[in-house]
Amino acid sequence: MRRRDFFKNGSLAAIGTQLFNPFTPADTIKKKRGKVKNIIFMVSDGMSTGTLNMADLMLQRQQGRHSLWIQLMHENRIKRSFMDTASASSLVTDSAAASSSWGGGVRVKNGVLNIGPNGEKYKPILHKFKDARKAVGCVTTVPITHATPAGFCVNSDSRSMEPIAVQYLDLKFDVLMGGGTNTFSKEGRSDKRDLLQDFRTAGYQVALNRTEMAALTAEKPILGVFHDDGLPYAVDRAQSETLKATTPTLAEMTQKAIEIMQKNPNGFVLQIESGKVDWAAHANDVSALIGEQIQFDDALKVAIDFAEKDKNTLVIFTTDHGNAAPALLSGSKANANFDKIATYKQSNEWILNGITKDFTPAQIIERIEAAQGIVIKPEEALTILSNYYLLGEGGIYNARKLPFQKLAQIQTPFSSVGWAGTDHTAEFVELSMFGPGSELLNPFVKNTDLHNFMLDVTEVKA
Amino acid sequence: MRRRDFFKNGSLAAIGTQLFNPFTPADTIKKKRGKVKNIIFMVSDGMSTGTLNMADLMLQRQQGRHSLWIQLMHENRIKRSFMDTASASSLVTDSAAASSSWGGGVRVKNGVLNIGPNGEKYKPILHKFKDARKAVGCVTTVPITHATPAGFCVNSDSRSMEPIAVQYLDLKFDVLMGGGTNTFSKEGRSDKRDLLQDFRTAGYQVALNRTEMAALTAEKPILGVFHDDGLPYAVDRAQSETLKATTPTLAEMTQKAIEIMQKNPNGFVLQIESGKVDWAAHANDVSALIGEQIQFDDALKVAIDFAEKDKNTLVIFTTDHGNAAPALLSGSKANANFDKIATYKQSNEWILNGITKDFTPAQIIERIEAAQGIVIKPEEALTILSNYYLLGEGGIYNARKLPFQKLAQIQTPFSSVGWAGTDHTAEFVELSMFGPGSELLNPFVKNTDLHNFMLDVTEVKA
Repeated sequence: MRRRDFFKNGSLAAIGTQLFNPFTPADTIKKKRGKVKNIIFMVSDGMSTGTLNMADLMLQRQQGRHSLWIQLMHENRIKRSFMDTASASSLVTDSAAASSSWGGGVRVKNGVLNIGPNGEKYKPILHKFKDARKAVGCVTTVPITHATPAGFCVNSDSRSMEPIAVQYLDLKFDVLMGGGTNTFSKEGRSDKRDLLQDFRTAGYQVALNRTEMAALTAEKPILGVFHDDGLPYAVDRAQSETLKATTPTLAEMTQKAIEIMQKNPNGFVLQIESGKVDWAAHANDVSALIGEQIQFDDALKVAIDFAEKDKNTLVIFTTDHGNAAPALLSGSKANANFDKIATYKQSNEWILNGITKDFTPAQIIERIEAAQGIVIKPEEALTILSNYYLLGEGGIYNARKLPFQKLAQIQTPFSSVGWAGTDHTAEFVELSMFGPGSELLNPFVKNTDLHNFMLDVTEVKA
Repeated sequence: MRRRDFFKNGSLAAIGTQLFNPFTPADTIKKKRGKVKNIIFMVSDGMSTGTLNMADLMLQRQQGRHSLWIQLMHENRIKRSFMDTASASSLVTDSAAASSSWGGGVRVKNGVLNIGPNGEKYKPILHKFKDARKAVGCVTTVPITHATPAGFCVNSDSRSMEPIAVQYLDLKFDVLMGGGTNTFSKEGRSDKRDLLQDFRTAGYQVALNRTEMAALTAEKPILGVFHDDGLPYAVDRAQSETLKATTPTLAEMTQKAIEIMQKNPNGFVLQIESGKVDWAAHANDVSALIGEQIQFDDALKVAIDFAEKDKNTLVIFTTDHGNAAPALLSGSKANANFDKIATYKQSNEWILNGITKDFTPAQIIERIEAAQGIVIKPEEALTILSNYYLLGEGGIYNARKLPFQKLAQIQTPFSSVGWAGTDHTAEFVELSMFGPGSELLNPFVKNTDLHNFMLDVTEVKA
């Protein structure tokens, strides 16, 4: 891809577009540009601008420091851009179309992975990098078969995770780690196939917990699945010695993946996703949301530390779309309410998953107070309880239809955090880059631009 | 201000801060930097990132073009930064403290204008520029005595507009134009003082409508007040031949102000505010919000067109804080619902201000359908009506306590736009710069940094 093409793609239309760059003239870039051998592509899934903001504010107030993401801005060490995240079918993308835009370079309809309107298959970018003999892989806190990693790995006309797990078997990618044991195990799969055994037979190392992850080596491709579904929220993991012993953090998985993949002399391309930022936003679950964004930031530190030493690594960090547009709202208690979120011991998910319709309102009040120090009213407890008579199954998120939104609305006067909804948003999102190649970034890009950008800076042919 | 100081101020603390800038080394900047003679400082008041986003999406879908703000990003012609907007008293600022941060260079408590905790008076920046013999002024769509212009002009321990109007009398600033006739007229003021006459006697040109504005010249200082309170929303103005004839647009006021102020051989500093972006966000009034953001963008075009020809003008465009965090939300009808907002003939303000408690639910349904094509349910109309039995007075916004939030909640399924609340937010906001001096902008700044930034690039002593 030529640089000029990149700018063209970044613009709605050629009308009146002046390809003028007062800051980094093309000839300067050519001279300055370092070689990009490795790419670490980091996704805080469903991160509205308010999420990035609140994680930074929390770290400022609790630890007297910025998030690394914001600190890198303060130090003027990264290039920033806005990114338009729309899909082929909507101004508001889902994660499948969003990851496909990066992974396949073409906007597809919501719900599909790198498949065009007439069944066209767009080659996922990790295949292109594998063809160039680079090490390739994905790491996530949600099932490794979820949309964001899948968009870099496969073509599929649905997001359905069990068939995607089967597709992964043939990939022999260097690292695939995250949650989602259920999509691989005999016990979890609807077809009762023991896919974990099939991966072993096919020559994979398979790790099922944190200890096994630590023992992984670079010799064979890796499948690591460390929890039935998504990994636990950071806020809940912190309360459980068992979870801390058995499940790795995103930073630990990132560290392990880099340790292994950097051994490839041709370099590596690694996608890292903090996938439960999106889940927490769908659930308007404020302590979970901030915890997962901080978890992302901790993983970012691992990537930046490596890239700083390596000097040939481009780190791209962004989100696939906004979600729920959370915001700390004005009010005389805004600061104090916000600070109290740091004292929440458990997520809303933990609270609601532990309630059954046999609870009394008093028991619900007690559970919420124990978890978060918030004392709700009896009539509010009753409203929450009433939802347990309406529970259902189905849907990608909140399959049990727990009263997440109701609980969040009750919490807002205590947290001063409001939510614009429980869905993805059309907002333009933050895109930052660190390292060689970053100087090529335009202040505004379309999500699809990143596909060719990654191929271009690594000089890999499409 | 030295450049190094600017970076220091931009950071939470000196801890670990590496003053490293891979993109624009200081020596390069010195060589490249054009002279800044004029500054046009543009504020879309209360602009959450979703507001900037939705105005651009609306123009894309209705006119096949980007907003100028986003187009300038696509063309790589501006420098962008995130800005932390907190005040001395809260993570969430009000407009008085926000404007004071720029105007006086110091964070003050919410509700005061350039006054410190012990009564310190921080000299407002337009006084500094007037001392440097530049032309100075403010233009806004809300009362010219409102917080955002006032923060560049006066010290005051309250935002109360009538005393601020009196303070303006002595300023003899070149241009003060906006709404707020009521704070100057005998009929509007609680003290029954005829301040309009006092301005005339003091040597001002006073303009009270669009025609009188057109006749203004550079010979004497200008007070232009074109509507009782804030100017009408763009969406409502478009429906009224009277309003179109009597009230200017923000772009027209901007054009006039620049035409007059550019005659000063020492240059000028002009603040432009689209103040009703904030009011529409407080009211969750979606068509009004998008209309006011587009009105801002039209004024931005006037400023950029001038700066392009002039070459010695720095245009700064930003907001003082987020408000309500609106977002276009996912759903199968998201695109179609969003497009329908373009067909709304009137704002929610127009709808609700025209309802009285004598209305029937059927009349409310009819009024909303006529204004916006939305057919609400009888029980929803009844909920709206019930609020008219609870109306009160007082407060800065929504003094009559109209059911704005309720109406917005009823509208969300029709518009696919949700709101996180009806208040200001803590979010980091967009700050963009065009023209000479912009190359000095760090990717992250505190609001207060802009005070010294403006003095530094114009080489005006504080």
